[in-house]
This record gives sequence, C-alpha cells and structure tokens, in this order.
Amino acid sequence: MSGHLRIATAAGDGIGPEIMNATLEVLRAAGVMDSTAPGHAAGVEFVPVEMGKAVFEKGNTRGMTDEAIRVTEECGLLFKGPMETPKGGGGKSINVTARKMWNAFANLRQFRSLPGVETVYSRAGIPIDLFIVRENIEDTYGGVEHRLSNDMIQCKRLISAPGCDLVCRFALQTARKLGIPAVHCGHKANIMKMTDGLFLDRFRVATRDFPEIQAHDVIVDALCMNLVVRPEAYRMVVLPNLMGDIVSDLCAGLVGGLGFAPSANIGRHISIFEAVHGTAPDIAGRGIANPTALLLSALMMLRHIGLFRPAAVIENAVLSALESGVRTGDFGDKSRPALGTAEFSREIVGRLGQSPRTVPPVPVPAERDEAALVATSPSSAARPTSQQVIRTFADVVRHVVGCDIYLDTPLSPVAVADEMQRVCQDTPFRLTLISNRGTQVWPTGSVYTECVDYYRVRFELREGFRPGDFGQARCVALMDRIAEKFVVCSYELLRVFDGVKGYSMAQGQ
Amino acid sequence: MSGHLRIATAAGDGIGPEIMNATLEVLRAAGVMDSTAPGHAAGVEFVPVEMGKAVFEKGNTRGMTDEAIRVTEECGLLFKGPMETPKGGGGKSINVTARKMWNAFANLRQFRSLPGVETVYSRAGIPIDLFIVRENIEDTYGGVEHRLSNDMIQCKRLISAPGCDLVCRFALQTARKLGIPAVHCGHKANIMKMTDGLFLDRFRVATRDFPEIQAHDVIVDALCMNLVVRPEAYRMVVLPNLMGDIVSDLCAGLVGGLGFAPSANIGRHISIFEAVHGTAPDIAGRGIANPTALLLSALMMLRHIGLFRPAAVIENAVLSALESGVRTGDFGDKSRPALGTAEFSREIVGRLGQSPRTVPPVPVPAERDEAALVATSPSSAARPTSQQVIRTFADVVRHVVGCDIYLDTPLSPVAVADEMQRVCQDTPFRLTLISNRGTQVWPTGSVYTECVDYYRVRFELREGFRPGDFGQARCVALMDRIAEKFVVCSYELLRVFDGVKGYSMAQGQ
Repeated sequence: MSGHLRIATAAGDGIGPEIMNATLEVLRAAGVMDSTAPGHAAGVEFVPVEMGKAVFEKGNTRGMTDEAIRVTEECGLLFKGPMETPKGGGGKSINVTARKMWNAFANLRQFRSLPGVETVYSRAGIPIDLFIVRENIEDTYGGVEHRLSNDMIQCKRLISAPGCDLVCRFALQTARKLGIPAVHCGHKANIMKMTDGLFLDRFRVATRDFPEIQAHDVIVDALCMNLVVRPEAYRMVVLPNLMGDIVSDLCAGLVGGLGFAPSANIGRHISIFEAVHGTAPDIAGRGIANPTALLLSALMMLRHIGLFRPAAVIENAVLSALESGVRTGDFGDKSRPALGTAEFSREIVGRLGQSPRTVPPVPVPAERDEAALVATSPSSAARPTSQQVIRTFADVVRHVVGCDIYLDTPLSPVAVADEMQRVCQDTPFRLTLISNRGTQVWPTGSVYTECVDYYRVRFELREGFRPGDFGQARCVALMDRIAEKFVVCSYELLRVFDGVKGYSMAQGQ
Repeated sequence: MSGHLRIATAAGDGIGPEIMNATLEVLRAAGVMDSTAPGHAAGVEFVPVEMGKAVFEKGNTRGMTDEAIRVTEECGLLFKGPMETPKGGGGKSINVTARKMWNAFANLRQFRSLPGVETVYSRAGIPIDLFIVRENIEDTYGGVEHRLSNDMIQCKRLISAPGCDLVCRFALQTARKLGIPAVHCGHKANIMKMTDGLFLDRFRVATRDFPEIQAHDVIVDALCMNLVVRPEAYRMVVLPNLMGDIVSDLCAGLVGGLGFAPSANIGRHISIFEAVHGTAPDIAGRGIANPTALLLSALMMLRHIGLFRPAAVIENAVLSALESGVRTGDFGDKSRPALGTAEFSREIVGRLGQSPRTVPPVPVPAERDEAALVATSPSSAARPTSQQVIRTFADVVRHVVGCDIYLDTPLSPVAVADEMQRVCQDTPFRLTLISNRGTQVWPTGSVYTECVDYYRVRFELREGFRPGDFGQARCVALMDRIAEKFVVCSYELLRVFDGVKGYSMAQGQ
C-alpha cells in the first residue's frame, strides 16, 4: 500500500467531538498525517463524514448521509466516535447498521491493564493482556424470531460454515500479525453439538494453516470462570456472536470498563474502528472527557493498515503518561489533579518518543522494517457489484429421510401421538419421536415432564426404504395432510449429508 | 410439613463418598436427623440410592437404578455428590438426565465470599453475596438442531411463557423467603426482542405479586461487566438458561471456584441439591477432599425444606471454622496445616453453636419461629399420572397472514427473488422480503452483504386481503409449489396474535 490513504472520520455525538479532536491531535503529532510517514507517501488523510444525532434529526433513520456512506465505502475505513441512537422515531443504532450493511464480520477488542488505571485486578497484581474476537453477523443476532403458539416463541440461532471460517481465520491471522502465541476457541459444543460443533470444527480446520500458533478450545462457562480467576491464562479467544458479546464486556470490566477498551469491526471491504462507550451527554462540551478508548481504537486502526511504528510510539507515550499519573477526572489517583481532554492529549504528545518505566514498553519497529510491514497490510478490495455468495461445503450428497413437523396444540402427548400415527399410516414415514421443549415425551418419557402448547413430531422413513428413495414432495404431502386437522406452525426437512444425519436427537431419545 | 421426611442420597463417584460422609456427619451433629428436630417429628432420614459410575458400568445408560429413581420420586428430594459421566458407551450426564427427567426448572446457586478463602475480590476487600437463578429446561438447551443446507446449521432457541413464569416466580418467592431485597432480570431483549422480550415481560408481570421486592432488569453483557467491577450491586439475578449458565460460572470464579459454590435444581415435584464440581479422581480415597460445596448445598436443602434453624447454626460454625484458618489443602493460608476431609468436618462440628467474629453471623431463628417457617415450606406434590400441559396464554385470537419459507440454494438474491415472484403470482400472497443470515437482501440491501446457501423468503397477504381471510392451507399449497423447484428446508407460519405480528422484521427491513 503506498500513496494517499483516506479514512472516513465521524466525530460522533456528546463527548465525541472532544475526544476525536484529542485523538487526531496525538496522531498528527506522531506524524501519521505527514507525507513522510513510511509506506503512505502522502500521509493518512482523515476525511470528515456526517453521522449521528444531527443526521437522525433530519429524518434519516440510518443516521448517515448518502455522502458519508459513499466516502466510507471509497475509503474502506471508518473511524468513529460514540453516537446516540434516538429513542423512538425508527432510528436504528449506527453501530449495528454499519456492521450489518458493510458485513464487518469480526469484532476485535483488546483488553489490557494500563498503569494508573486501578481495578480489582491491578490491585491484586494480576496483569491483563488479551484479545477477544467475536463473530459479528450470525447466531441469534439475525433476530429471526417467530411466535409459534400462544405460549412459545422461537429465535433461530444460525451458524454457517463460511461465517465460522471467516472469523476463525481472521483471529488466527491477527494472532500471527501481532505475535500472539496462543488462541482459544470459546464455545458451548457440549450442548449445541451441531452449531457450536461446527464453529469448533472450522476453528480446528483453520488452525492447520497456523502451525506456529497454539490452538485450544474452552467451554464458554468455564472460560468465564477462568477469566475471573486467572485472566492471564488467555491471550486471544474467538467466539460466536452472543457469547463473544458477553465475554467482551466481562473483559472490559477486568481492565476498568469501556473507557479503556478499544474496538474494531473488520470486514472484507470496510472496517470500522470505534470507542464502544457512550456519548456521556452529562459532561459533553465541558472538555473533561477521557479520550483513551478512542485513542486506543486509533492504534488498532494504525496497526490494521500496517503503521506499526507510529502505533508503538503513541502507545509508549500513552503508557508513559498514565504511569506518571496523567488522568482525566473519571479514573486514577484522586489526590492528583484531573486534566481536561485537551491537556490529557498534550501530555501524551509531550511524551512521544519516551518509553514507560513501570511496564514493558512496546517494541518500536525500525523504519525499514515498517516499510515491509506496510507492504503486507490489508487493503480494501474493490466494491462488489452485487451480493457475493460465500461457500465452504460443495458437492455434498444429500438425501431426504423425513421431516420434523411442529404443532400448535394444547393436546397431551398421548393424544398427539394417536393422531400422528393415524395420519402417517399409508405414507413412507413412521412416527419416531415427539418432543416438547427438546425433551422426548413419546414413545417414552417421564410423567414429570411439563409440556407447553407446542410439539415437535418427527417422521422418518419406514424400514425397507432407504435415504433418497423419496424426495421432499412426500414430506410436504404429509404436512399438508396434518394441516387439515392441526396448526403446523413450523417444519423442517430431515436429510443425511454425505451419509451423516443432519439433525439432532431429542434429550432422552 | 411434619412427620418423617426422607431424602434420597447418592454419595457420588471419586471424592463423592468422602465429602458426603463429612457432610452428613455435620448434619447429624446439628440434630437434623433427630426426632427432636422441630417440624420433622421423626427427624430427617437420608436414604442411600445407587447412582453413578458403578451403575453405568452395569450397562445402565442413565446411571441410576430403577430403585434409585423410585425412591427419589417418593422422597421428592435428592441430595447428591459429584458423579462421573463415562466417555463413550452412550452414558449421559446424570445431572442433565435428572434435571430433564424430573423437570427441575430452576437452578439456584449461591455465591458468597467466605472468610479464609482468598480470591482476587477478597484481597480487594469486595464482599460477594448473591444468588443466580437460571432457567433450566428451555433456550438452546433443548438441543433442537438441523443442518439446513451444505453450509448452514440452525439451533432453535425456545422460550415459553409458562417456562418464564415458573422460573421468574421461583426467583421472587425465593427472594421473599430469604429476605433478599432486590432481584434483577438478566436478558438480551435489545437483540432477541421476542424471546428475551417475553422473558422480561413475564418477569415484570410476576413482580406485581412481590411489591416489597425491588425489581430491575439488566442486559446480560452489561451485567457481566458490572459483576466483575462491582459485584456487590447484585443480590439475585434470574436469567434464561444459557446466559444463566455463563453468569453462574462467572460468579463461581468471584468466590474462589466451584469448590465453594453450592447448587440446587428445583422442580415442582422433585428438587436436587448437589455440588457441581468434579469427582477429582486424582485425590479420591485419600481423605483430603474439600467438602465445603456439598455442605453448603446441604444448607440450601435444609432451608428449602424449612429447617432454617439448623442451617443457620451450621453456617455459623462453617464461617467460624474458616475464619480460624481451618482448611483443606486446596485453599487457604498455606502457612497453616491442611486438614483431611474428616478433620475439617470435625472442626465444624466442634464449632456448632459458635458465631463467626470477622463476618456477620447468620441470624438463628428461635425454635418457635422455626415451626412457623417449616409450616410454610414447600412440599412435594403428588406424582402425576401423565405429563401435564402448562399454559399461560389462552383465548388468543390468531389469524394467518403468510409464511416464511427457507430455501437451500446457491443462487444469488436477485435470482431467488425472480423465481419467488413468479411462483406467488396467482396466490393471495406477495413476496415482501428475502433475507440471508437475518440481513435483508431484497427488495433492498447492501452489495457488501455476503450470502450463504440458505435464504429466508417471506410471503405476506396482498393488499385487499385481511388477516384470517385464508387459513394455513394456502401457505402449505405455496410451499408445495416452491418445493417443485427448490429444496424447502424449513417453513414457518406467520400469524397475528390478538392483532400483534407474531414474527420479527429483518435487519434493514
């Protein structure tokens, strides 16, 4: 990457403009905008774009102008301050919209103990230094929800093989780039055997291309216990979306809260670097906000585009300032004076070139190494002309073996079983299972199982028929017949994929 | 409750027998088995039952004998040590089997800082004292999973209104019984608006019957951050199953790990009290295991059956022993001698009647108050003769408005849209939405959205038709037609319930 590099920059709402100014002042002082910055002949240009409250107030429910979208897509990089989501009026969170619209599939967050930032863990002498990589598109975050009976609501948890591949490979590549020796895959594959089993499988497949990185897996509940007891055991953890969300915020707590936790959303075409804390409207405009999270997010961005040298110089200056007791009013030693936002950043600027004494300094690459690093940095791919279909598994042999039919009915399991056995009598299928909330209630079950008004009824091929003897038409016909008498609120085709059942057994089956 | 009370008791595997003996010795010394124990004229009888490794080894995949099941169901109470789940051979976790078989819908866990148990938080001077109540049946734990295309796997997250009611009311009742002033509902209703929205709604409805309890809600990621930063802000949190699992183990970490975290699984008929730590085969039989978690679980059980007085007496003795430096080898001040399991329990027995000095003692109810408490304690209901159907919402007016049809296809969104518009031409339905992994890709969408081989296609009534003009038969007919050309891997009926849409919109819709 050489020549002119542009970054769309949205200051944000509330304290956003103050902390953005402070952050850009530090970057400018470190030479990031200079034409002498190695690898970027004309320096980095921060291009202001309009996003946030003022845009929402003009009736734009995305909170971004068309021009802001155009510039961001051209740049491939967005640097943003915190933004308000208006209550009511149909406005949606800019963070969520941006992530979805631009398919930023991985959320990368860094959690690190900082000198001068007192936490429960710093007091106990336990240093924190880890990254969480969270899948950003799939899982229950698709928000695909249906009320299936009076009493039952369902949310689909969707996990795809290409989605797992993208985020797991991104985590391993990032570990390689940053020299992180070990990556854990966090999951709940002991319960969600197929979905989280897939996540774990794809992680394992990906690790084969990263033999120098130690790969481990950990069940998410044990992970959360361990993170609280000995957080130093982890350097990077990659997780599905919801678990990643929960674990990320747990880790923010370990290092003192969202004010010290930078964040990046990485996509194939567009990546977004942001502070994830709020807009703090109560102190906005008073020049006292803490810019640390946004500044640390900027350092993630510099490293993302290959500018390891200025990132290291700035990071050492930040560490040096913090260990000297430089602070804003929201943290640090209350016996020392609290600085304003601008003073805080000037203290950092004044320390550019210095190294911290109480914590290990970040190694600063030599200028000639920097050029090599920049050459291998990611570049934004060309704008696609339409949505791309991403694939992992092709050429799989698939055969229909039955269907699961879901009924909205207040009947008892026995009554449901009687009706279902009758309805499938002269079909290729036999009734093999009825479950309620995942627990088998027929052919066997416990009298203690309490049922709601929503049943799964499973039909599989009778003996004598083989997978593939019939197509899905027979299943649809069966459903049609059941729908004459019952409300069929949901249906799934049961298939074998390369001879392996593509469906789970019920608890107790 | 008066007369003879029996508790099925399974010592468990590994260190189970040692810690069970130690625990029962303490209970015996506190008079729990005496016929003079108030409220239980003949004292409590602990009835040994066979569960665990030895039973699995006889080829029983449930790991419990029929006699053990019969006795447990008669007693309504099971007290159990840790048990091994054999690898391979089809054996299933006894914990999961018991919870499911006996419909123990709530997992209650207590987390409390103990004197002498050093943790990061004790060193920081932050006391922990909270309960987590976890829904135990529903959510993704039903394990209802389907592979819907080569690349997409789905897990159903199921949340029912009666399931929410049971666990939320149990939490509030427990708070009332134990004098806990505030209960938080933990959820992710900002993302899973319908399922976790239901959980939160039902919590709020339940709180109306508990006006003396402060009710709050908290988003689960913020909860995890707060628990790490200021755990003292919470006294009881009730959560859906998976989040409850994660948060419970986080809290176990706060107090020193699973060795100090008792657990109860509460059902309408049968409740299970257990230590959730492992069987520690490496130290089994050496008489050095720490019985604290099992003993604390016994205290939860005593309170469950109304024996608050002996529970308080024992708890004070435990606190008194721990603050004196009484310890097993796995925790405490290494400069003091580590005791064996039996010695450890004898130290507790020797302190029955004493109160701790460094932490607040537990108030011991007077004998006559105890009798009143026992009278209000839960009793096990009669064995049901068949599965019960539990209901919250009845008399809801429901009308069909369309269907979501899910396709397994590698086509592009535009190609899918063309085909789907053609297929619904002469039906009462129009194509309103195509989404991929929850993100809208038609009629509008972003070129940056990356699609997998699994689409949701939404059909809703054309203008001029009203909800209820057609039944589900038209939807099944549409699906039948689509299935002539596409693989329909899944289907959901779209309805309005009392005029409210029973389905979510796509991101971007």
